Amino acid sequence: MNAIDIINKTKRSVILSDDEINWLVKSYTEGDIPDYQMSAWLMAVRLNGLTEQETISLTYAMRDSGDIMRLNVGKTADKHSTGGVGDKTSLIIGPIVASCGVCMAKMSGRGLGHTGGTIDKLESISGFRTELPISEFEEILRENKFAIISQSGELCPADKKMYDLRNATGTVDSIPLIAASIMSKKLSVNADYLLLDVKYGSGAFMKTKDEAEKLAAIMEKIGIAAGKKCKAIVTDMDTPLGRNIGNSLEVREAIEILQGKYKGKLYDLCIELSAEILRLADKGDYQECVAMAEEAVSSGKALEVFRNTIRLQGGDPKVCDDVELLPQARSKYEVRTVQDMEILKINCEEIGMTSLLLGAGRINKGDPIDMSAGVVMNIEPGDKVSAGDTLLTLYSSVCSDFSDAAVRALNAIDFESLNCHKPLT
Amino acid sequence: MNAIDIINKTKRSVILSDDEINWLVKSYTEGDIPDYQMSAWLMAVRLNGLTEQETISLTYAMRDSGDIMRLNVGKTADKHSTGGVGDKTSLIIGPIVASCGVCMAKMSGRGLGHTGGTIDKLESISGFRTELPISEFEEILRENKFAIISQSGELCPADKKMYDLRNATGTVDSIPLIAASIMSKKLSVNADYLLLDVKYGSGAFMKTKDEAEKLAAIMEKIGIAAGKKCKAIVTDMDTPLGRNIGNSLEVREAIEILQGKYKGKLYDLCIELSAEILRLADKGDYQECVAMAEEAVSSGKALEVFRNTIRLQGGDPKVCDDVELLPQARSKYEVRTVQDMEILKINCEEIGMTSLLLGAGRINKGDPIDMSAGVVMNIEPGDKVSAGDTLLTLYSSVCSDFSDAAVRALNAIDFESLNCHKPLT
Repeated sequence: MNAIDIINKTKRSVILSDDEINWLVKSYTEGDIPDYQMSAWLMAVRLNGLTEQETISLTYAMRDSGDIMRLNVGKTADKHSTGGVGDKTSLIIGPIVASCGVCMAKMSGRGLGHTGGTIDKLESISGFRTELPISEFEEILRENKFAIISQSGELCPADKKMYDLRNATGTVDSIPLIAASIMSKKLSVNADYLLLDVKYGSGAFMKTKDEAEKLAAIMEKIGIAAGKKCKAIVTDMDTPLGRNIGNSLEVREAIEILQGKYKGKLYDLCIELSAEILRLADKGDYQECVAMAEEAVSSGKALEVFRNTIRLQGGDPKVCDDVELLPQARSKYEVRTVQDMEILKINCEEIGMTSLLLGAGRINKGDPIDMSAGVVMNIEPGDKVSAGDTLLTLYSSVCSDFSDAAVRALNAIDFESLNCHKPLT
Repeated sequence: MNAIDIINKTKRSVILSDDEINWLVKSYTEGDIPDYQMSAWLMAVRLNGLTEQETISLTYAMRDSGDIMRLNVGKTADKHSTGGVGDKTSLIIGPIVASCGVCMAKMSGRGLGHTGGTIDKLESISGFRTELPISEFEEILRENKFAIISQSGELCPADKKMYDLRNATGTVDSIPLIAASIMSKKLSVNADYLLLDVKYGSGAFMKTKDEAEKLAAIMEKIGIAAGKKCKAIVTDMDTPLGRNIGNSLEVREAIEILQGKYKGKLYDLCIELSAEILRLADKGDYQECVAMAEEAVSSGKALEVFRNTIRLQGGDPKVCDDVELLPQARSKYEVRTVQDMEILKINCEEIGMTSLLLGAGRINKGDPIDMSAGVVMNIEPGDKVSAGDTLLTLYSSVCSDFSDAAVRALNAIDFESLNCHKPLT
C-alpha cells in the first residue's frame, strides 16, 4: 500500500477498503506518511466525502491508534455535545443521571476560541482537580456515580494529530471527518450508553439543521456499529444556552438550575438529554425518564451528587449552597439600551467572542484565562425592553476598559426599534 | 492574507484575486507556507478547478518566481510538446525552422519514467554539450539559429517545488495545474513565437482528445494573454512517434528524416509543426509554410543546420552523414511472431516501459542511462505480418537477458490472429 494510491482513490471517489484506511491512519500516526500527503487526502475527503462504511472504518482506525479506557465500575454513560456558547449541560445532566442510578464517567476538554470547555468551568471552583489517576476516577464513580476528568493524551493520538492538521488546512468542515473525530474519542472512552447532542445555529459548528441531522445520523450509526447503546439528537444553538457565559458564571448557573431556582430553555434541554440517557440505560419509557429527571432536581438529589463530586475532586462543596463563593470579577459593566426595542436574535458566536475579549477564553492553546470573566444576559429573543434597561452585564478581572467588549456585545443583538416608525410612502 | 483563507476559498469555489495567487506562490516558494497547506490547496484545485483568469494569474506568479530569459538574438521561436514515447520532433523541427530563417532557442529537459527527454537524446552524440553558458547559447543562435540547452534551475523555482509536491500528493492530473506548470516555464524562456503540441492517447499524459483540447485551449489563452504569438495544436500519440524509441536510436531516426530517407507520419507531423511555427513568424500562409518546410528537408538545408548545431555544441557532426557512428548496442534481440496476424494497435506506454527495461530511461532522477538501448519497430497499426516476421528489435548494452523486455513488448501489441477463424455458431 502507498499513500499516493489511497489519495488517488479518494480523489476519484473510489471506495477504500478497511485495510487501506487502517494502514493510512496507522502510518500517519507513526510518522511514516508526511503531513503533506495526509492533508491532500483530507481535502479529497472534504470535497468528495466518504461512504458510511469508510467513515466507520476511519473511526475505528483512529480509536485503535491509542489506549481504550476500561473502567472497572460497571456500565457507564457518556454524553457528547458538539459544543457551543454557554453550554454547561454536562454539569447539570451528570448529577441528574447519576442521582437516578446511572454512572456518568465524563471526560472533557478545555475551551478554545469562542467556545468554552467543561474542564475550565469546573476549575473555576477553588481546589477542583480534573487531572486524576484512573484509579481515583473509578473510586469516585463507585462512590458517587459522577466524575469528570480532563482528556488524556494516550487516547486517540491519531485524532489529535489529524485535528491539528485539519485546523491548518481548511479541512475541519467535513461531516465524515467531524464524525470520525468525535466518535473515535467517544469510543476510546468506551461508555456503554452514549448520548450525542448535535448543535446547529449561529453558535454551533453546524450552521444548519440539515447539516446537523446528517452529522447526527452518521455518528449514531457509528456508535451502534461499535456495539454501543447510542442516540444522537439535534438541538438548536442559535441563542446562547442559558443566561450566563464564562467559566465561574456558568458553574453558578448550573448550580442555580440544580437548586431548582430557574426553569426555561436550559432546564428543559437538560431534562430532555437526561431522560434520553436514562432511556438508553433502560430506566423506563421516555415519559417515565423525564419524570425521574425532574424529580432528581426538585428533590435536591442531583445537587447532592454535584456537591459530592466537587468534594471528592478536591473542590469546595459549599459553592453548591452559596454561589457567591465562586470567583467574582473585580469589575463589571452594564450594557444598557438607549431606545425601546424588541429583541429579535442574539448571535452566539459574537457573544462567545465578547466573553473571549473579557478574558474568559483562550485565543491560543495554553493561554491563561480569567475564571471570573464573562457575560450575563438579561434578555432573550422576543423580549421588549425600554430605553435605560440593562441588556447584558459584562464581568472581568483583567479588563479595565470595557468599550471593545460592549461594542461587540451590542453587535451580537439583532433588534427592531420601537421608537421610530417608518414614514408612510 | 493567510493560507487557510485561500484554501477555504478554492475549497468553496470562490475565485481568488491576482494578489492572493501571487502571495500564495511567492510565500510557498520562499518557504513561508508549509507543504501540507500547499498540498491541501492543490487538491482543492484538482477537484474544483480554477477559472481561466486564476490559471493565468497562477502561471504569471510561477513565471515570476525566478529569472526570465532575455536573449540578445532578435526574435525567437519555441516549441513545446506535452511529451510521449519516441517523440524526437524537436530534433527535426528545430533545424527545419532555423534553415527557413526563424531562430529556434530550445530549452529541454531529461527523461523520466517511460517518456524520453531531448537532452538525453542529444547527449548520445559523443561530445555533445547541453549545459552551455547563456553567452555561448546566444553566439550559437546568432551563427546557426538553432541551439538546445538543458533546463536551468533559476527559471521557475515555484514550478519545480510545486511539481515535486504534486507528484507526491496525487495532484498532477489537473488541467489548470498542468497548464500553469508548462506555461510558466515557457514564459520564463520567453520566446516570441510559441507552438504547443498537446498529445493525447495511450502514450500521452492526456488520455482523451477532449482533455487534450481543453488543455490546449487554456495554454494558448495564457500565451496570448502574455503577449506571445502562440498556437496550441492537438496531436495523436496513440502509437509511438516514428519507428525508433531510445536515445541514440531516436537521434538516428531524426537524422534519417532530415536526410530525406523516410516519409510517413513522423515526417508529416514535423512538417506540420514547422509550418505552424513559420506561420506564427509571419513567413507566409499555411500552404507556403508547408512548402518551405518540405524544401528545407529536400534541399538538405535543415540537415546542414543540425550538422552545425552538433559541431557548435561540441558533438561529432559526422553522425549526420554516417549514423553508424552513433552509440551501438552490444546486444540485440528480434521479437518475432509465431502466427500470421494483423496489427491493430501499439500501446505507447508499454513500448516506453520496454525501452526503460532495456536501460534507455530512468526510474529515478539521476539514474544512469544506456544511450544505445531501445526499441525499433518494424510494424505499425494496419500491417499484416506472417509467422516468423520480426515485429520489433530490442537493443541494449546493459541487458543480457531480453525475456522480460520481449514479453512486455509483445503485450504492447494488440493484434488479430489471421490463422484461426472463429467457428460458425
